[in-house]
Amino acid sequence: MPTPAILLYADSSQNADQLYFGRVNVPDAFISFGLGRKKYAVVSALEFGRVKRDSAFDVVLPLEAYATEAKKRFRGPRTTAAEIIAVIAKQFSQKSFVIAEDFPAGLANRLTHLGIKLQIADGPLFPQREIKSEAEVAAIREGNRCSTRGILAAEAVLRASKIKAGKLLYRGAPLTSERLKLAIEIACLEAGAVSLDTIAAGGDQACDPHERGHGPLRANELIIIDVFPRVAATGYFGDMTRTFLKGRASAAQRSLVAAVRDAQLAALKKIRAGANGHDAHQAVCELFARRGYETKHTDKGSVGFFHGTGHGVGLAIHEIPRVSTVDYRLKKGSVVTVEPGLYYPGLGGCRIEDVVQVTSARPKMLSNCHYDWEIR
Amino acid sequence: MPTPAILLYADSSQNADQLYFGRVNVPDAFISFGLGRKKYAVVSALEFGRVKRDSAFDVVLPLEAYATEAKKRFRGPRTTAAEIIAVIAKQFSQKSFVIAEDFPAGLANRLTHLGIKLQIADGPLFPQREIKSEAEVAAIREGNRCSTRGILAAEAVLRASKIKAGKLLYRGAPLTSERLKLAIEIACLEAGAVSLDTIAAGGDQACDPHERGHGPLRANELIIIDVFPRVAATGYFGDMTRTFLKGRASAAQRSLVAAVRDAQLAALKKIRAGANGHDAHQAVCELFARRGYETKHTDKGSVGFFHGTGHGVGLAIHEIPRVSTVDYRLKKGSVVTVEPGLYYPGLGGCRIEDVVQVTSARPKMLSNCHYDWEIR
Repeated sequence: MPTPAILLYADSSQNADQLYFGRVNVPDAFISFGLGRKKYAVVSALEFGRVKRDSAFDVVLPLEAYATEAKKRFRGPRTTAAEIIAVIAKQFSQKSFVIAEDFPAGLANRLTHLGIKLQIADGPLFPQREIKSEAEVAAIREGNRCSTRGILAAEAVLRASKIKAGKLLYRGAPLTSERLKLAIEIACLEAGAVSLDTIAAGGDQACDPHERGHGPLRANELIIIDVFPRVAATGYFGDMTRTFLKGRASAAQRSLVAAVRDAQLAALKKIRAGANGHDAHQAVCELFARRGYETKHTDKGSVGFFHGTGHGVGLAIHEIPRVSTVDYRLKKGSVVTVEPGLYYPGLGGCRIEDVVQVTSARPKMLSNCHYDWEIR
Repeated sequence: MPTPAILLYADSSQNADQLYFGRVNVPDAFISFGLGRKKYAVVSALEFGRVKRDSAFDVVLPLEAYATEAKKRFRGPRTTAAEIIAVIAKQFSQKSFVIAEDFPAGLANRLTHLGIKLQIADGPLFPQREIKSEAEVAAIREGNRCSTRGILAAEAVLRASKIKAGKLLYRGAPLTSERLKLAIEIACLEAGAVSLDTIAAGGDQACDPHERGHGPLRANELIIIDVFPRVAATGYFGDMTRTFLKGRASAAQRSLVAAVRDAQLAALKKIRAGANGHDAHQAVCELFARRGYETKHTDKGSVGFFHGTGHGVGLAIHEIPRVSTVDYRLKKGSVVTVEPGLYYPGLGGCRIEDVVQVTSARPKMLSNCHYDWEIR
């Protein structure tokens, strides 16, 4: 059976499939397709030289020539990517393509009207993205090295901060979440990665897991630092979380942090090739239940543990597999985060996250940062 | 006529429509819809509190409850966003929705199978995104203030560099594109914005307009600095380019830079409400032709001026309108870049870019940075 022809229309700065396919960062949407074992890209003069030189595409076609041809053949008010694809399809005698779930519906619609048959991939367009090659594992390790640099930069700021009347002062000014994020993001840049949406949230703010944190940080409060930088050179992500506290932790805070770390270790024990991701998630839920940490959903929000235990990481920050309530058989070579957390306004939030590769035995750690969290 | 119901399924970190609609940064795809004048979001417990508190959505619905209901009603192997949307559509007695061109084709397909009628918007989902409000103009100005900070940081590094045997030395080490980009990106972070894909390319590299630049920079070469940071607080972009040269410019380099700046001024004269963007682009092409700068396309790439004169900027770095070969009537209140450039390997590349708002008279400058470019 021949490899089905695939068709993409996306930029590769944001679309992981397009980057996986062509291995070149193009900021605007462009046409690419695979016929047999060959990869084709259709790009404008603006990108032509760079894509020809730096990408994994076997053939780079000039957009302008095809646009001119499309204008001649279809004398409509506008020549869109659909007409250009129709010209290319005819040239290559290709009448049907497989597209990804997230292929733009408008373009799909116009292509169908132009007589091109489209089949939406059942599942990922590139199922092989789930299994990471050695080079990909190295790139993810590099991402986590950048995460570590960011987290250690935050820790250094917390160490250098002074406590005054319950507040934190850094170099004489109140230490804010913003200041901490700046230190993290500069450290990531210096390490070769870009950290977007960095989280440095303390106290009750940290109980909202996607709250990035804002305003002054306080002593004796748990501060969640979640750093998921993207390596500029490769596009692969790291993803790591540590929870710190500057000052003195209460017994309740210590129990909370210990439960989260123990839950992470319990989950790690369940992660191996062939295991169900749900079982690792269940191990976390059970450990929390045993220690009396209840999960509740109310009108005002949720408390306890109310997110997945982990997710795949690669060219996207969230990709398959999932380690959550969903049944999902873990495959050898896939890469996942393991990140249990507990969140109780009043007491605080804690999340600890590392990245591992699934093997047939114990998972291989791809992130490396200490777990000391109390900073005097 | 009632406002048609619109439906979105996208994250708002990358999808500008979703951010425009809800004004809250959510990193994972979520369902949102508009019925009449009310805006609805359907988000998980992970986002619920934050979206309820910080967004422009009038009603925030809990994803988990609808997922449970969808699981009950559709006993298929998996409950996707499609089944959840079907449950919501039934609850709100809404049988059809307008979707954007870039709505995911897979989801559109499943919704159609579930009996939901979808109409793809003819043009943008939110045409009003083209016309910027005062608050949006302020946000774009802020983006350009960050661009300026980045460009001035690069200039400061070039000023502080020494020339030795034709090469640039900064703090004793060879000055590279990477080092210059780091200085720019740190300055942007400090100013409150993230600069991705920053360009700091010299010599022949700068002749490939989307080449970011890599390796050592040299004296007496034109260096293009293009900085388009996104303001973290609002999601709006700035976009500015300056071209520098450290050392002594040749007469040919001076003529090239003067032509580009004059072309920018010529384009600015043509930009006003009701004018055709194509005419501004044509003014650039004509000025270049008059001064003997030819544009040629060869197998190896293009030389001369081979990109558009400008593009809209807002929550996306490239949005409507276009100022290019395409006919496009400019509207009062829209915001565009004006960025002619010339690229000749051997001689070098030059691009000068500012951002303006279209008015019924002269365009209003939204970026502000000097044009001195020779650094001794």
